[in-house]
Amino acid sequence: MMKRTLLAVLAASALTSPLAAQRAAALATAADAKVAALRDKALTDDTAYKIVEGITTEVGPRMTGTEAAPRARAWSVAKLKALGFKNVRVETYQLPVWSRGTESGDLVAPYAQKLHLVGLGNSGATPAGGLTLPIVYFATYNDLALAADGSLKGKIAFVSNAMQPTQDGSSYGSQGTARFVGPNVAAKKGAAAIVIRSIGTDHGRGPHAGNTNFDAGVTPIPAAALSVADAEHVERLVKLGKPVTLKLVLEDKQVGMRDSGNVVAEVPGTDPKAGIVLVGGHLDSWDLGTGAIDDASGVAITAAAAKIVMDSGQRPRRTIRVVWFGDEESGGFGGAAYAKAHAGERHATAAESDFGADRVWRFESSLPDAAKPVVDRLAVVLAPLGIIRGAGTPHGGTDVGPTIATGVAGIDLNQSGLRYFDYHHTPEDTLDRIDPEQLRQNVAAWTAMIATVANAPEEIGPIVLEK
Amino acid sequence: MMKRTLLAVLAASALTSPLAAQRAAALATAADAKVAALRDKALTDDTAYKIVEGITTEVGPRMTGTEAAPRARAWSVAKLKALGFKNVRVETYQLPVWSRGTESGDLVAPYAQKLHLVGLGNSGATPAGGLTLPIVYFATYNDLALAADGSLKGKIAFVSNAMQPTQDGSSYGSQGTARFVGPNVAAKKGAAAIVIRSIGTDHGRGPHAGNTNFDAGVTPIPAAALSVADAEHVERLVKLGKPVTLKLVLEDKQVGMRDSGNVVAEVPGTDPKAGIVLVGGHLDSWDLGTGAIDDASGVAITAAAAKIVMDSGQRPRRTIRVVWFGDEESGGFGGAAYAKAHAGERHATAAESDFGADRVWRFESSLPDAAKPVVDRLAVVLAPLGIIRGAGTPHGGTDVGPTIATGVAGIDLNQSGLRYFDYHHTPEDTLDRIDPEQLRQNVAAWTAMIATVANAPEEIGPIVLEK
Repeated sequence: MMKRTLLAVLAASALTSPLAAQRAAALATAADAKVAALRDKALTDDTAYKIVEGITTEVGPRMTGTEAAPRARAWSVAKLKALGFKNVRVETYQLPVWSRGTESGDLVAPYAQKLHLVGLGNSGATPAGGLTLPIVYFATYNDLALAADGSLKGKIAFVSNAMQPTQDGSSYGSQGTARFVGPNVAAKKGAAAIVIRSIGTDHGRGPHAGNTNFDAGVTPIPAAALSVADAEHVERLVKLGKPVTLKLVLEDKQVGMRDSGNVVAEVPGTDPKAGIVLVGGHLDSWDLGTGAIDDASGVAITAAAAKIVMDSGQRPRRTIRVVWFGDEESGGFGGAAYAKAHAGERHATAAESDFGADRVWRFESSLPDAAKPVVDRLAVVLAPLGIIRGAGTPHGGTDVGPTIATGVAGIDLNQSGLRYFDYHHTPEDTLDRIDPEQLRQNVAAWTAMIATVANAPEEIGPIVLEK
Repeated sequence: MMKRTLLAVLAASALTSPLAAQRAAALATAADAKVAALRDKALTDDTAYKIVEGITTEVGPRMTGTEAAPRARAWSVAKLKALGFKNVRVETYQLPVWSRGTESGDLVAPYAQKLHLVGLGNSGATPAGGLTLPIVYFATYNDLALAADGSLKGKIAFVSNAMQPTQDGSSYGSQGTARFVGPNVAAKKGAAAIVIRSIGTDHGRGPHAGNTNFDAGVTPIPAAALSVADAEHVERLVKLGKPVTLKLVLEDKQVGMRDSGNVVAEVPGTDPKAGIVLVGGHLDSWDLGTGAIDDASGVAITAAAAKIVMDSGQRPRRTIRVVWFGDEESGGFGGAAYAKAHAGERHATAAESDFGADRVWRFESSLPDAAKPVVDRLAVVLAPLGIIRGAGTPHGGTDVGPTIATGVAGIDLNQSGLRYFDYHHTPEDTLDRIDPEQLRQNVAAWTAMIATVANAPEEIGPIVLEK
């Protein structure tokens, strides 16, 4: 009876759920034995780990505008050539550079204590000698947005946020508003400065760096993120009902336009008209950690997977292009420069890895209907890795987003984000956060995806964009 | 059959194992209903959490020699008076003070990168402008001890260590030698400086502070601890086989003798001749965190437990003396000063809490044989909290150790140390590391212990010391 009930449920769901129907179709597709073999080879390959180890150990933090950024590009060119890729090159562009100076934060009243904070990218500077002012507390970004114009004059806005881990990382988008737009809004309302609770899911002392942006015509104010533990400390003082005064020193500044570059490497295909399979991650990192999960792992995973396909003995139909984007953190300049420079080329798909190195649990794609069999085969070859077929739209990401926006199909291989925001943009983003076993699962997923898409006999895209 | 086998095993073990026999005896002792009621009351009491929250929020880090140290004593006197204790006072003594100045560490070769480190207590200073020298790598303290005299001239000794978490904290004693005596040994062998891997079980960027000591006649050298993640980074470079050069800046110094003090509070007993029940923890902390687990929790647990006994409506037979020792971290000066000042008084027992706030899992005691029924009753009343009776000798600790050394019986309530050394002496030792549920279990254990010992009709000690 148990069995009969279960079958009845399955039959009913197959009839009513598009997802179940989709899955049933995928299961009816035969796996490509060659692709499956490459996928399984990747599960014992340590190329990706060695790349992450190399970048974090031999280069370290590589923030835009620092001396380490060109050093990282030189390291990357040498590495990609050594791995056997063709047409390895740096594609240069310019971008505006913001620079971090001396930064500190101190509780002055009601009880003196040193705070752990970091200036947000594009923060304004405090006056000489720092800035000592009372705070106005906002539990969320929404509360700040509701504050009356001018009410923050002579004050430091303090914006908290409650961020919980989510597997798909969606809490970053919603809770991140405190950082993304909080400083701009506070500046418009007359605040002298803004301090936010770090956008993170840990409870540690390492603050989370990250970019913010001010509208044209708005003078940037000093903007910093307290570590989560320090923010909770300030909140306890607020709850005591006593006025809280902070001293901030942020000697940050804009230093003007500078050269940067994307590192490009290729596995040339046999059919130049079939379109390029674009994969990659970003080479730059924030300065507090060594950028292991953000995003040495992404450049490593995509290059290691492309290398396994390259070394398979069979030249792919489509050119596989691996791009280590030069500047993601400071405002997506690498991805924008790539899209502009390659606007005339046909791309079949674009995909990036920029969410750490934990296990891929889902994939999503926007391939046109004519290429649906490609997606079905992808679902079959990814399933043994525990990866499910999502029903949503791929996110794309900051690096390949501008290319996808031109009508290129996107593919997401979604990694688990359950611990990503414990370390994201903090001093704790170091090599030891990488789980080699999960990293190899990533490489296997990317190998299967690249092999499937690059060799697909079907036409892929361009897709028609909704206006 | 299963049952018969089990009974046979139990019978055999009862006959052969002293521990099982001891336990059987304990189980035959009736629990004291009044003590059990106080114990269970403690499981819903939040006095201890409020003390930890108060010290960490309103005082913060309170390292010996800083302005926060007298502020912590003033806070404590006010708090202990407010809780209703009698004879609340500061007992003043003097101690030598070491002061932390500007500190930094940089990898200079083979690849430049900033390191996270902290100077060890009693570290010498680097010359003006810092010190840039190659390192000599030692995997353990033992390897350093085997180095030839003079072989470290013009070098920085780098001593690693592999520390695993242990429930009883014993890995601190063994692996801690790199910090406790490594600098002294390196100085004697001619090293210009020493850097150790932090004595910790985490993999983070927060370095672990802590004291070291140099023999009389040995000139202190600069001595620092790298965070575990940074130490692992240096070890990867060592494995690459390339010479590693560090730049160290440690502007630390001895500042001479200063006043300090132990904060003392009492629940006066009815029988002055029965001896004092001494309990406490230490008020000072290292400067990187706010000293929540080390040792605001210890002073909080012991005071909260003493208060529950005080508020029971029945004055105890023995005086309960709560001491918040002023200086433990800098060399045990608080405990030594207490033992000296109170050498003429009879103490029944001495016990301290200085191992965080995680669950108590075992107790050990050195009460004389005549007082064995007290220990049996203690075992019975602690058992419902999941606490087992240990067969070893109590450790005592730095604060009550000098008192125990005069022939006073010690009692240990051993807390789980499985995560203690993730945070110990780091910036991460903050309020959020305290689990309120486990903290209350501690208070319940201490309440049961204090109530049992303070009201015991048996004579307790002094014990005869082995010469």
